[in-house]
Amino acid sequence: MEAVEKLNAHLADVVNLARAAAVLGWDQQTYMPPGGAEARGEQLATLSKLAHEIFASDKTGQLLEEAERALDGADPDSTEAALVRVVRHDYDLETKLPTSLVEALARETTRAHEIWVKAREQNDFASFAPMLERIYDLMREKAEALGYEDRMYDALLDQYEPGAKTAHVAEVFDGLRQELVPFVHQIFERLDAVDHSFLHKEYDVKKQEEFGLEVIRQLGYDFSRGRQDRAVHPFTTNFSINDVRITTRYLPNYLPSALFSSVHEAGHALYELGCDQSLENTMLAGGTSLGVHESQSRLWENIVGRGRPFWQHFYPLLQQTFPEQLGKVDLDAFYRAINFVSRSLIRVEADEVTYNLHIMLRFEMENDLLEGKLAVKDAPEAWNAKMQEYLGITPPNDAQGILQDVHWSSGLVGYFPTYALGTLLSVQFWDKALEDVPSIPDDIAQGNFSTLHDWLRNHIYVHGRKYFPADLVQRVTGEPLQYHSFMRYLRDKYSEIYEL
Amino acid sequence: MEAVEKLNAHLADVVNLARAAAVLGWDQQTYMPPGGAEARGEQLATLSKLAHEIFASDKTGQLLEEAERALDGADPDSTEAALVRVVRHDYDLETKLPTSLVEALARETTRAHEIWVKAREQNDFASFAPMLERIYDLMREKAEALGYEDRMYDALLDQYEPGAKTAHVAEVFDGLRQELVPFVHQIFERLDAVDHSFLHKEYDVKKQEEFGLEVIRQLGYDFSRGRQDRAVHPFTTNFSINDVRITTRYLPNYLPSALFSSVHEAGHALYELGCDQSLENTMLAGGTSLGVHESQSRLWENIVGRGRPFWQHFYPLLQQTFPEQLGKVDLDAFYRAINFVSRSLIRVEADEVTYNLHIMLRFEMENDLLEGKLAVKDAPEAWNAKMQEYLGITPPNDAQGILQDVHWSSGLVGYFPTYALGTLLSVQFWDKALEDVPSIPDDIAQGNFSTLHDWLRNHIYVHGRKYFPADLVQRVTGEPLQYHSFMRYLRDKYSEIYEL
Repeated sequence: MEAVEKLNAHLADVVNLARAAAVLGWDQQTYMPPGGAEARGEQLATLSKLAHEIFASDKTGQLLEEAERALDGADPDSTEAALVRVVRHDYDLETKLPTSLVEALARETTRAHEIWVKAREQNDFASFAPMLERIYDLMREKAEALGYEDRMYDALLDQYEPGAKTAHVAEVFDGLRQELVPFVHQIFERLDAVDHSFLHKEYDVKKQEEFGLEVIRQLGYDFSRGRQDRAVHPFTTNFSINDVRITTRYLPNYLPSALFSSVHEAGHALYELGCDQSLENTMLAGGTSLGVHESQSRLWENIVGRGRPFWQHFYPLLQQTFPEQLGKVDLDAFYRAINFVSRSLIRVEADEVTYNLHIMLRFEMENDLLEGKLAVKDAPEAWNAKMQEYLGITPPNDAQGILQDVHWSSGLVGYFPTYALGTLLSVQFWDKALEDVPSIPDDIAQGNFSTLHDWLRNHIYVHGRKYFPADLVQRVTGEPLQYHSFMRYLRDKYSEIYEL
Repeated sequence: MEAVEKLNAHLADVVNLARAAAVLGWDQQTYMPPGGAEARGEQLATLSKLAHEIFASDKTGQLLEEAERALDGADPDSTEAALVRVVRHDYDLETKLPTSLVEALARETTRAHEIWVKAREQNDFASFAPMLERIYDLMREKAEALGYEDRMYDALLDQYEPGAKTAHVAEVFDGLRQELVPFVHQIFERLDAVDHSFLHKEYDVKKQEEFGLEVIRQLGYDFSRGRQDRAVHPFTTNFSINDVRITTRYLPNYLPSALFSSVHEAGHALYELGCDQSLENTMLAGGTSLGVHESQSRLWENIVGRGRPFWQHFYPLLQQTFPEQLGKVDLDAFYRAINFVSRSLIRVEADEVTYNLHIMLRFEMENDLLEGKLAVKDAPEAWNAKMQEYLGITPPNDAQGILQDVHWSSGLVGYFPTYALGTLLSVQFWDKALEDVPSIPDDIAQGNFSTLHDWLRNHIYVHGRKYFPADLVQRVTGEPLQYHSFMRYLRDKYSEIYEL
């Protein structure tokens, strides 16, 4: 135990530097005047350099080995064992990459990002292609340095979803795709069945803000331990288990945007805020993976926030807030409208039915590009073909196709699947919560969100990073990641909405 | 030159850590939810520990010595020589104190602060006295560790006003007191001559804010390189030469409070923002001392902001903003009101005429306490006697007397005089600016603040920390710190206002 305490004490500076950097990042995206940008970059570089120096030091390695020896044979469910497991995972990630590769990645992704911005503006994939090849070369180098047993992609995926395996994800996605594509096409034939034009009226931004704040307050977001500010891109960030902040942005002509973005970010925040206080100031504070994090943002946003019970409770207040726009729209019409499905070309605008198809496309292409089965020059065509196959639509240009996402130019390969894993897990967790507490939908309809919130906190949030995602999912739901629950959820909900 | 570059590169992390800590401090006082407080303390402790470790390291000492050798015989006005001078000053301050003393200071001032808060609440000096004795013991230890040639107080004063000497300050203060006390008493006999009751009407906070923002914008505060937020205590902070922020707070029943506080903080900010860009990311960025900093805040607040030309320009807009409260108050009555003098017991509420007397009292007592000429147990009586002598008023209790300031409990001895030095310097700088650019008052009356702002920037702000305060004052005004200009300014202004 003493060995673990020593490790914790040593890593406290790393935790504090990361949190300080998060404060600087939050300020950068909320209140920083433009003049501060250049110096802010220098400050963040210093914090990240010092954090890396301390974390990747031999001292960390020694303390970690001592802690591992001291815990040999200890209960793997103990906080101490979990801490050592997580530190080992992160330490290996941080130390396995040679400095030359880390520097090359920093340099080339900075260049790639600039070139991508221009290429997207000018709809010119050819100008981005050489950088994309370079990025994938570096990604292969990175995967080799990190190491993998089965698929090269495993090494990259593990950065964002510790322990996840490509083969398993591919199997789940394959099964899902076979059921989802025909279902989506069934809906596409009925798109006219849902009118959502009234969501595009003028909605006063100040009133949107007040309503949104009231919603997340009722969901259980604790404003004494967080706050919501405006930013160009909504995000959640934390500087402590007790200071978890979200941001949103308002569109005056589209009601759902800010509202569901707020609920989405509040979902992320509830996860962080629910972490057991004993994990504060340790590397176990926070969420266990991007996938599990996304399961919470999407559970609150889509299953709860786009669900009927939620609006049974909140719709009268919303109508009262916007009587002109919604006074004559009944609950059922509103519920259908906020769940409208579309043939969107753009991932970030996709609804919960089609969203995963956008992700699967990227997951498949990332694997093919990484393993050399697909050449960069052929990538736009492959993209468009998959779009046609999955969504029955071909992008009119690459800007709305393969150039739409920032991820690859930033070196984020292996990141996309976590979005879809989150979607699938959100339903698995929800089903289990309802099995344990069947009153949850009725409670929500009464404006009581605490039965759901308590269940999620007690089963998922309290653990922080104690369990790797697959272990957590097995532990909480009694089964591994699967797509059947999600398909059942979609069929139930959307067959009714689209009268299939 | 290479040696200086190496030193600069090494110290960049120290600069960045200090600026990162400043961002965390700004957030703490503006937007941080209460839950974040505990972890924020940990984060700030890590940043300050790492900054100290890097700055006080042997490596800094070696690089500094190398730079000093390389610059032997160089032009003392060169940026390189200035950098080395300033780093030497700060390095000695940072390394001369033994760790045991630094720890004792941190521990005892934390305790002292808590005890002072209670003592002030309960008007119980006796409960604070043992801590005050302990603080002064530590201050003597500190002065011995830092070293001094003449007066013990020199060592403490030098922390805030590099190079300043107690004997010189005492001489200036003595001269000032002999002229100021009789002048103040002359005014005290005419206090009824100025009506300021209308300043205490209800002034809408939102309108106060809009007006205040417009004022500082016109003064030249650049909102692309700064911003104003609300905080309990107004302050200025900077994270870059190009990101200098101020805060203010509004009193609905007292117009001057937020307005002049905004102008005061904007004065600090203009100084920082005017620093030459070539000094960015070095230890020369910023202001050279607390005294010179205060000269700028007070020049803008009192000489400009409480001056007649300023209100010739701004009063019509203020009347338009508050027609009910000020529509029937003419410019002259308003000008006299915002310059009303009072027999205040409390330093932070004092006007520009009496303010320095509050400071001199503290300066004298600090010296006497430090040198053992005054016992802590006798300090309240000494305080009250001086208040009677200087301001003709005796505090009814210690809470409004010796217990009113936070400084001593925080270990800030040697800090107070910088406020008065700033007041004296503000007039010396102003006089010199008018000698060079006689049109300044007329320009201000026309709403043109750039002739003054340009002069201050070109003569003072651009230099950052390049010159120690006494050198800067001599360089800019051609003479050392003196009190005659200030007394002449007071006589001219207040003889008219109070019709003496």
